[in-house]
Order: sequence, then C-alpha cells, then structure tokens
Amino acid sequence: MSQTLLEVGAIVKSAREVWDGPGYIVLQDDVIEDIGRGEYPGSRAGMTVVKRPHRVAIPGLVNTHGHAAMTLLRGAGDDLPLMTWLTERVFPMEAKLTEDAIYWGTLLACWEMIRSGTTCFTDMYMSMHKAAAAVEESGMRAVLSWGMVGLDETSARSGIRNSESFVGAWHRQAGGRITVTLGPHAPYTCPPDYLQQVAELAGRLAVPIQIHLSETRTEVDDCLRLYNRTPIAHAASCGLFEHPVLAAHCVHVTDEDIEIMRANDVHVAHNPQSNLKLASGIAPVPSMTQAGLIVGLGTDGAASNNNLDMFEELRLAATLHKAVAFDASILPAAQAFQMATEDGAKAVFLPAGSGTLEKGAAADVTLLDLRSPHLIPTHSLLSNVVYAAGADDVTDVFVAGRALLSNREPQTIDTERVEYEARRIAQALSQ
Amino acid sequence: MSQTLLEVGAIVKSAREVWDGPGYIVLQDDVIEDIGRGEYPGSRAGMTVVKRPHRVAIPGLVNTHGHAAMTLLRGAGDDLPLMTWLTERVFPMEAKLTEDAIYWGTLLACWEMIRSGTTCFTDMYMSMHKAAAAVEESGMRAVLSWGMVGLDETSARSGIRNSESFVGAWHRQAGGRITVTLGPHAPYTCPPDYLQQVAELAGRLAVPIQIHLSETRTEVDDCLRLYNRTPIAHAASCGLFEHPVLAAHCVHVTDEDIEIMRANDVHVAHNPQSNLKLASGIAPVPSMTQAGLIVGLGTDGAASNNNLDMFEELRLAATLHKAVAFDASILPAAQAFQMATEDGAKAVFLPAGSGTLEKGAAADVTLLDLRSPHLIPTHSLLSNVVYAAGADDVTDVFVAGRALLSNREPQTIDTERVEYEARRIAQALSQ
Ligand SMILES: [Zn+2]
Ligand SMILES: [Zn+2]
Repeated sequence: MSQTLLEVGAIVKSAREVWDGPGYIVLQDDVIEDIGRGEYPGSRAGMTVVKRPHRVAIPGLVNTHGHAAMTLLRGAGDDLPLMTWLTERVFPMEAKLTEDAIYWGTLLACWEMIRSGTTCFTDMYMSMHKAAAAVEESGMRAVLSWGMVGLDETSARSGIRNSESFVGAWHRQAGGRITVTLGPHAPYTCPPDYLQQVAELAGRLAVPIQIHLSETRTEVDDCLRLYNRTPIAHAASCGLFEHPVLAAHCVHVTDEDIEIMRANDVHVAHNPQSNLKLASGIAPVPSMTQAGLIVGLGTDGAASNNNLDMFEELRLAATLHKAVAFDASILPAAQAFQMATEDGAKAVFLPAGSGTLEKGAAADVTLLDLRSPHLIPTHSLLSNVVYAAGADDVTDVFVAGRALLSNREPQTIDTERVEYEARRIAQALSQ
Repeated sequence: MSQTLLEVGAIVKSAREVWDGPGYIVLQDDVIEDIGRGEYPGSRAGMTVVKRPHRVAIPGLVNTHGHAAMTLLRGAGDDLPLMTWLTERVFPMEAKLTEDAIYWGTLLACWEMIRSGTTCFTDMYMSMHKAAAAVEESGMRAVLSWGMVGLDETSARSGIRNSESFVGAWHRQAGGRITVTLGPHAPYTCPPDYLQQVAELAGRLAVPIQIHLSETRTEVDDCLRLYNRTPIAHAASCGLFEHPVLAAHCVHVTDEDIEIMRANDVHVAHNPQSNLKLASGIAPVPSMTQAGLIVGLGTDGAASNNNLDMFEELRLAATLHKAVAFDASILPAAQAFQMATEDGAKAVFLPAGSGTLEKGAAADVTLLDLRSPHLIPTHSLLSNVVYAAGADDVTDVFVAGRALLSNREPQTIDTERVEYEARRIAQALSQ
C-alpha cells in the first residue's frame, strides 16, 4: 500500500465545488482516499508528504479523442485541403509507420500530454500493442482502440482479428489504467456489413466502440447519397448504438441526429481546434449538451491540431460557441471545465467519479502554479483555470496515485531518448 | 555600447525566411547588428555571449491591442452578456482604479507578456503616466494611448488635456521604446465633434490614433441609426482617417468599410479570442488581408480574454478563419506568423524592419525551446511555432537588446512584489 499526502493552496474538486484556500488530498494506491480543507487531521506516519502550498489541484484533464503516434507527423502537411493533406501527406507517411514508430510516437504524445496536465487520453491507431506498452511505461491512463478499416477483405479481417486479440491482451491491464474499445474508423471506411460485424464483436467482448462520425460536410453528403441516411442515422441502422459508443467530431449533425444520439446515449468527443484547422466547421455543442448528451473534449492527432494541449481545447470550447451564438453566457467556464474533466471521463467510459477529486475517485490529479501571472489575481479560480491558465502553469501530475510530473520534470519518460528516436523516425518518414 | 552575441540552434528571421540549423545574432545596443548561419565569424572580444544551442530565435511577438492594467479584473465577470458585464462588473471596478493600481496592473501585464514571448504591446487606458513608468521599468516596448471619452464636457476636455501632456512627456521616451498615440475610445463614446477635435490634435502633435471600431453588431446598428453610416464610414467622415489610424476589432465590417480602410491605409488589430469570448463574432480577416490591409493580432484586455498570451491569438488566427471559409488553405502558418510579428509591428507604427530579425531591425528577440515536445519532430519549424508552440516553450526574451527573460526567469520584474500588490488591489476592487 502506498499513501501520498498532497498539501496544496487551493482545490477545484469539480466544476461544482471550488475550495479557494489550503487543503489536502490523500492518494492511497490508485484512489483518492481522503480530501479536505485546511490541514490534514490524521497521522502522517508512513505517508509520502508532497508540500505544494502555491499550487491549485484540479482533476487531471481527459483527452477524449486522438491518434497519439501522429505526433511523428506534426507539421508534416498544414494549410492543405483535407483530401490533399490525407492522400499526399498523411497516408504516404502512415504507410511507413513501423511498430517501433508507434511506440516512440506514443511516448512523445504521453510526454507532451503529461506536461500539459492530461492524465487520461483516448487513442485509435495501428500496432496498438506498442501504444499500450508506451502507455504502461508512461504511467498514464488511456482508452485504446485498434483502428479498423473495412475497405477490403484483408484489412477488414485483420481489423477484427487485431481488435479481438488486443482486447484480450490489454483490456483492464496496466493496473487497470488501460481499457480497450473497438475502433471502427468511420462509415466512409467501414461498409455497413463491417459495422454490423463490429457491433456484434462489441457485444460479444462487452467493450464500447469509438468511431469518427459527421466530421465534414462532404462525409455527410456522401453518406446521404450512398445510404440515404446521415452518418449518425446510418451508424444507428447498422446496430452500432446498441452498444456504448463514443462518437468523435459530430460537426455536421442535424436535430434528428442529436435525438438519435440522445435516445441511444451516444457520447461525443468535441475537437474544436482540429475542426477549425482542417476547416471541418464548428460542432453545435450547445445543442448537444442541452439535449443531455455527454460531451468531452479532445485534441485529435498532432497532424491536425498540431499539439496535444487540452488547455487550448478547454478555452476554445468555452469561447468559440459564444461567438457562434452571439451570446456570451453560452457554455460558461464551469461547463467547459466539466467537459474537460468529469464529462470527458464519462465520455470515455471511466468509472463514476473519475474526472473529479471526490473521495473514492481515481487518483488522477494535476497541479497548477497559483503564482503564475495567469492565476493572479483570483476573482474566480475556476474562471482563471478555464480562460487564463495554460500548459506553462502545470507543475505536477499524478495518475493512479503516482507522480508522472514533479515540479515540471517528467518522472517516467526518458525525454532525451524520446526526442532522439522521434527525430530519427520522422526523418525516415519524410524521405 | 553593449554587444550581445546570441548563439542559437535555429532562426526564424521572418515569415519568409527560416534557418533550420545553428546561427547567431549580434545585438548591438538596441539594434540587430548582424545575423547569420553557423558560427559567428567575428571576434567575440567585449561581447556578452549567450549560448542557447537548443533554442530557436523568432522575432518578438507584437500585441497590437489591449488594456494592460485590466489584468486586475481578470476573471471578475465572465459568461455575461456584454452590457451586463460592462455595467455591472467592469465599470464599477474601473471606477476604483487608482494610479497605484494602474502601475501594478501594468507590471502584472508586462510580466505575463514577457513570459509568453511578447516584446511590444499596445495599451489604451487611464492614468497612463503610471503605465508608462511600468513599461519603462519592465524594459518592454509599448505603444500607449490615454483613453479618451467624450460623453460629457469634463471628460472630453480632460481626455484632450491628458493626451496632449502624455504625448509631451512620454512620446519616444524610455530610450525610444515608448511611443504615444491618441486613443479616442470608440464612436459610441466619442461624439462626432469630439472625434474631429481628436483628429485635429493628431495632426498638430503628429502622432497616430488608435480606436475601437465595429466590434459588435449592436455598435454598428446604433451607429447606422444615429449617423446613417457604419462606424468605419463615420470615423472617416469625422476626418480621423486623414491621420494614421489603428482600428481595433473590425468584426462587423462591410466590403465598403474594407474599401474605405484600404483607401486610407487604416491598420487593423484582430483580437480573435476576445471577439469569441465576448460573443462579438468573427472578423472577416481573409477579406481584409486580401484587400491589402495591414492586420496585426492582439489579446485585448485580460478582463475579456482572459490572458495576454499571443501564441493563443496566433494559433486561433491561423485556424479560426479556415473553418469559417471551409477552406484549410486560408490564412496559412506563414501569414499568421507575419501578422503576429512584422505586420503587427507595422500596424502599431514601429519603424520598418521591426518584427523581423533582419540586420538593422530593433533587437527584440524571443527564444523557444527546441527540445519541447511541441517542437518535436521538425517537419516544419514555422508550422511548429504557429500551430504547436505555446507560452511554455518561451525561455528567453530580449527587447532593445536587453534580456527581460533569461532561462525562463524574469530579469526586470520583482514578481513576488507584483503578485502581492496585484492581489491587494484586486481585493479592494471587489469590495
Ligand atoms: Zn480522429
Ligand atoms: Zn479594447
């Protein structure tokens, strides 16, 4: 049994409860065993005491959508129309991604996410056993999918086979930090019968599904032409929504789509910055949350963002929809914060309480520097965290009770080695 | 004479020229005396040598619009409709801002901007002699205006008087780092005859003007009703554009407005994040730049943003307009970078060459950590700086040849004192 007593200057327990003064958190093994205001009243015997009087503790941020190893493609093709970007830059490079590349690219992503206060991320990509190994090593929490594409019989079959063996090998592994979901890429890469097979597999393995849905206008138009249904309605008709589903993007959704998602409790990963950069559009998030959908935030891959900084997504989610609605009261700070933490955790199917600092929740905690100019003065701590804080304010990160970042220093990642390997691999990719 | 030899791992001279390998910059007094690739070939005798082999040098970022001391109001009222926010939160607090508050609030802003790589900022506020004192002390470059409001005779007269004496006292002072412009707040707070007086004063004192124009739909509608002209056309009709003008926001502008601005070489300060957060809208920046307007980027005040991080504005400018146009090739990285540096410098009337690292330009340089995960790998250094880098990557800042930030440590600002004073004043404001 390991116990850490965290003494901090302030605590944001959740979007609903902010303690603007000293407090403590007891991390016992991988769970928050106790949390309170003021001095810890119990005995400190046997505890590792971490004194951070000038830090505010917040729940670790949850990144609900991404492709971690795409860090290796960061900046490889920007400012291009989507199809040019995909076919001329991304696909040729991805074809060269070895297992070794997936491992180092995922570690690079973990390093970047830990440094910016993210404790749990979602990943859908290839050679995922290597990604899982990187996650295990990094100490992060992750929800992983082996990406499935059904455009030809060979890849369709290997997608099913890889996913099934990946679930067997990694679901609930790494001390429970890794969970596995199925990852059919999208309706435009997975024909209807393949989506049906995936749905059947999800039922058999009792794991959720994540999929890209309604990211671009073109995707929706094509789907309407092919199947006479929107991607959401089409996914429903293939039986996908009979299982827990996390849908990434949902930029171009109709009121009917939202009703289908609500009726089937489909979760949404909102990736505002990726949607802007790839010119996909702006998702109607206020309509989705008003309908009662669980919406989390995500960065998407570093080839389309181009970083994995959840503070940017948090701030963008809290500001972007105000301008669209011409209403400054839309999507207030507390709601955006909840999307980046508690609702994100729900969206990716973590246990209840995850994404908060409630007693009994997973011990995933991020500390921010209260002496950063971004957090001075403190008219509203929550507002400062949402609208002013940045990755530069992150000083410490704990996942499952273990320190992954301590006084801004990564504890689990050999950053020099990761830099060396990432540069080596990226050079080979671009040749 | 002081000479600094800066040895770095890479150099972004400007949006047009990136040196992806070691290089050097010689800062002689306040000017870039030499810049080159590889090793400095000259003698190092008498030079301060700053070795930063793992840093990339970029031109310091230029913040073209803001209200520095509003840092004291950070987070004091968010998620409120604009008029509620102004009348119930901002105005009552601003009424309590003493000269002391302006001084410390401006220093807090300087601290935050230096830490995030900004070397020059624009300010329009009150008690500006105290803001100027803070700027002088911080070592930053700034373009300052004493805000002018003409709603009653007393404030109209004091606006003229304060501005005139402020120009006399501070224009081209602090070793040339401070320039002064006139700051009529907006057409809705400055009646036509007052704008005419301001224009006349600008001519007499030979200084430029900065003003808020067409920030909200309501402002435009009101102006049309009152004067039968858009705010841009109205400002033109008052003679404002017969002098150099920097117009902040320009969110709701027509094609005719853009043509008026082009014909009069009116510069624009684009504040994307403030415009989103206050639900003002999204400025048609691609149309303005295509028309040939000089457009810089700004944060606006920390009460409406809520931080002064120009990397966020840079990234938002480069992504937001893509989604609006449904075109991922709109406003590419190089153009956004130019807006944040060279065009920003032009927008605020700095001498030619400012905002670049060309020989002869002002010695305003920001260094970023090439070993940050955001800058790994390096398929495109410029893309990494625009789409991936953040304030956390800023390690060193030089303004007019002097180090204001060195290995992440502020050199000119007593940050503990600023924190103490800012918290003290903010507490008084909220009582
Ligand atoms: Zn994706
Ligand atoms: Zn302003």
